[in-house]
Amino acid sequence: MTVAGHRRRTLDQVTQALAATAMGREPPDLLLRGGRLVNVNTAEVLEGVDVAVREGFIALVGDAGHLPIGPHTTVVDVAGRYLAPGFIDTHLHVESSMVDVRSFARAVLPHGTTTIACDNHELANVFGLRAVELFHAAAAGLPLKVLLAMPVCVPSIPGMEDAGATLGPEEVAEAYRRGWAQLQGEQMNFPGVIYGDPQVHAITAASLRAGVVPTGHYASPALHPGLQAFVAAGLVACHEGTTPEDALARARLGCYAQQRYGTAWLDLPRLVRAVTERPGLDTRFFTIVTDDVTPATLVREGHMDRAVRAAVAHGVPPLVAIQMATLNAAQLLERSRWIGTLSPGRAADILVLRDLAAVAVDQVYADGVLVAQDGRLTVDIPPYAYPAWALRSVHLAPLAADDVRVPHRGARATVRVIRVVPGSARTVQETAVLAIRDGA
Amino acid sequence: MTVAGHRRRTLDQVTQALAATAMGREPPDLLLRGGRLVNVNTAEVLEGVDVAVREGFIALVGDAGHLPIGPHTTVVDVAGRYLAPGFIDTHLHVESSMVDVRSFARAVLPHGTTTIACDNHELANVFGLRAVELFHAAAAGLPLKVLLAMPVCVPSIPGMEDAGATLGPEEVAEAYRRGWAQLQGEQMNFPGVIYGDPQVHAITAASLRAGVVPTGHYASPALHPGLQAFVAAGLVACHEGTTPEDALARARLGCYAQQRYGTAWLDLPRLVRAVTERPGLDTRFFTIVTDDVTPATLVREGHMDRAVRAAVAHGVPPLVAIQMATLNAAQLLERSRWIGTLSPGRAADILVLRDLAAVAVDQVYADGVLVAQDGRLTVDIPPYAYPAWALRSVHLAPLAADDVRVPHRGARATVRVIRVVPGSARTVQETAVLAIRDGA
Repeated sequence: MTVAGHRRRTLDQVTQALAATAMGREPPDLLLRGGRLVNVNTAEVLEGVDVAVREGFIALVGDAGHLPIGPHTTVVDVAGRYLAPGFIDTHLHVESSMVDVRSFARAVLPHGTTTIACDNHELANVFGLRAVELFHAAAAGLPLKVLLAMPVCVPSIPGMEDAGATLGPEEVAEAYRRGWAQLQGEQMNFPGVIYGDPQVHAITAASLRAGVVPTGHYASPALHPGLQAFVAAGLVACHEGTTPEDALARARLGCYAQQRYGTAWLDLPRLVRAVTERPGLDTRFFTIVTDDVTPATLVREGHMDRAVRAAVAHGVPPLVAIQMATLNAAQLLERSRWIGTLSPGRAADILVLRDLAAVAVDQVYADGVLVAQDGRLTVDIPPYAYPAWALRSVHLAPLAADDVRVPHRGARATVRVIRVVPGSARTVQETAVLAIRDGA
Repeated sequence: MTVAGHRRRTLDQVTQALAATAMGREPPDLLLRGGRLVNVNTAEVLEGVDVAVREGFIALVGDAGHLPIGPHTTVVDVAGRYLAPGFIDTHLHVESSMVDVRSFARAVLPHGTTTIACDNHELANVFGLRAVELFHAAAAGLPLKVLLAMPVCVPSIPGMEDAGATLGPEEVAEAYRRGWAQLQGEQMNFPGVIYGDPQVHAITAASLRAGVVPTGHYASPALHPGLQAFVAAGLVACHEGTTPEDALARARLGCYAQQRYGTAWLDLPRLVRAVTERPGLDTRFFTIVTDDVTPATLVREGHMDRAVRAAVAHGVPPLVAIQMATLNAAQLLERSRWIGTLSPGRAADILVLRDLAAVAVDQVYADGVLVAQDGRLTVDIPPYAYPAWALRSVHLAPLAADDVRVPHRGARATVRVIRVVPGSARTVQETAVLAIRDGA
C-alpha cells in the first residue's frame, strides 16, 4: 500500500462499527489471537487475550470467541507473544536524525515508535512559520502519528543569532488555529520564564489559551526555586534532568520527567534510579524520550525500543518501562483516549513482541495496518515533493583553515574550552594552555 | 466575602505573578507553612512542606523560606497537619440532594469537595436545554468548581415517558459550543450503545467532535462482550459497577471505574476489593463518586470526605484513596493541569486535614480562598435569583388512595414486585402473593 492509502479515521466516525464488531454482529478487520496482553492501565500481563480491530481502532480486548471471521478478516496467531501499545516519544527533533519526517517514519516504525511529538525548531529557525506549515503538510497521511510541537524559541537566543525568522505569540497562536501544531514545543529560555520575560510568558499564554500542553526545557541543576517557577508558569514536561534527584523533583511537582536516551544524551540510566530505588513510588509522571538520535543509532540500535530496553536493563520493571513509553506519554499529551493503551475505542497501534524485557519487536501495527515486520517496513512511504524554496537553504562558503585561525603572539596561549560530558547534554567550561604554531 | 467577589483567573493571566512569587521577587497571597504534603503525583507523604499561593494558583510547593511576606500575605501554620488537593466528584446529580447548585456548594465545600462534574438531567427532563443554560448561569461565580456534564438521556427512555423536552445531538453540540457544558453526562442507554441506536451514537459523536470526555452508565452485570462495545463506542467512565470484578473489568479496559458511595448506593466497599486484593495493581483508573446523596447524608455524614473515609476503612491505603478522589479524577476529566494535585501552576484548591485516615477536614481553600473551617462555610454564597419560568414547575394534583388502587376480584393476587437491594442501585424482579382487601 502507499501512504496515500493510509486511512486514519476519527473515533466519532466509527463508534457504530466498533460496537457492532465487539458484540459479534460484524467481523473485525484484524484479529490478533491469544496473546499476552501488556495491560498498561492496570500494570498487569494478562494471558490468552485476543485483540479485535475495526476501522483502525480497537473494538475488543479479551475473548473474541464470539466474533465472526469475515472474508476480509486477517487473523494472526500471537500465542506466546506479547501485545503492547505502540511507543510514544513525547520529545524529539526529526532534524537531529538528518532526514525529513517521511524518512524518519520509515526508520522508527519498525522499532515500534508509532507516535512522535516533534519540535521542528531547526527548520523553523530557517523558515519560520512556513517551516511549521510545510512540516505539517509533509507529515500528512503517514502511518506514524505526528504531533507537531510548536517551536517557541526562534531564535533560541534573541540578539545572539542570525536566524531566518522570529516566532512570537501571534505566530504560535496562528499555528494552533490553523491546525499545524498540536502542543507547545520546548521552552528553552528558562531564565526568561523564571525571571519574567514578557515575550516568553506571552507565548505560554498563547498555548494555554489554545488549550494545548506547554512543554519545557529546564537545563539548570538548581532545582530550587527555579524549577518551581518554571512549572508554576505552566510548563509541565521537561527532558533536561540528568540526575535521579532531577527526575524525582519534576515528578513530585507534577511536571512530567521525560527521561532522555538519545544518541549523545544518555541520561536515562541515571534518572531511572529515582524509580528503581523507591519501590511503591507512583511512576505516572515518568516518561521516556529520545530528543536527538543520529541515523547510525536509528539503524544500528533502534529508537524507542532501544530506550525502553535501556530502562529495563537498568532495573525498571518491563511493565513500568512500557507504561513510561505509552500510557504515561499519552497522558502527558492529553490524548490517552486515542493512544497509549490497548483498550477498546483507542487507535490500533499495536506491537507484537517476542520478548518483553528485550523489547524484541516482531510486528508493528499503526491504525490497524501492519507497517513493519521483523524490523522491516511493510508499507511504502513515498517521499514528499518539497517546494523549491525549501531546498538548497544552506548557504555557506567553503571553509578554509584561515576561517578558524586565531592569530596569537608568543609560544603558548590560555584558551577557554568547552568540555563535553560523555552521555550528557551538559557541558563544563574549562581553560587550557595551547602551544602556538606558526603564529596562531 | 460574597460570591460576586470570588475571582477565578485562568493560568495564562497569572504565569508572571506565579514565577515572581516562586522566585521570591514578590510575596504570596497565602502561605501554608510546614505541612505534611499528600503528594498524589508520586504517592508519597512529604514532611515539612510549604505551599505558597498567588492569584488563586499554587506558586510553590516545597521550602518557601526565601519568599518575602507582604502586608497582605496570610500565613497559616499547618505543622503536623496534612495538605491534600480538594476532592473532585466526577459524577453526581445535584437534584438528588433536593437543593439547587448554590445550596449544594454551601453543603459540600466544608467537606472538602472543591470540584463537581454534575449531570443535571432531572432538570433537563423538565426544561430541556434551558435547564442547562440556567444551571450554568446559577453556578457562575461559585467557589465550587462546577463542570456541567451534558445530559444525554432526555428523556431517559424514549417513548415511555412524558418528559418536558427531548435533547438530541444538535442540542448537545450547542451546549458545548455555548460553553454551558464541559463534558458528556452519563449515557444510560447502554443497550442503545451496544446495539447501535443511531441517535445514541450521534450524541457520542457530537461529544467526541467537541473534544469533551463522554461518560457512561453501563448497568448490566454482563461484562462480556457488552462492556467492551460500550467502551469501544467512546464511553470511558462508568459508575455502575457493583462487584470487584465490575471495577477491575472497567479499569483493565481503560474505562474509569467510578466507585460509588452515595446515600442509597453503597457499592464502594465491595468495589475496592479489586484494589485491596491486588497489591501492585496500577490504580489510576479508579475514582470515587457519590452520584446521589440526600441532604441528611450531606449534613450528618459528609460528601466526598465520607466516601474517601469509607475507602480507607475498607482497606485502601489513604494515599491511594485520596488519589482516587483527586488526581485520578482530574485525569478522567482531562483537567489535571488545573485541578487534582498540589503542584505549581494548579488551582489552589487545598484541604488541611488533621488526620489522614479519618479524612478530618480542618480547612478548605478554593482558588486560594478559605471557604470552610471546622466544617463551617466561611464565605457568603447568596441564592440565585431564578426566573419565574423555572419555578413552580411541578404540576401534580393531590394524590388520593384511589389513584394507586388496583381493583381485583378474589381473595389473593399474584403481583410483580421490585425488590430493593440494600446499598445497591440494582433491583430484583420478584413475584408476591398479596391478600385482597375491599376489592383491591
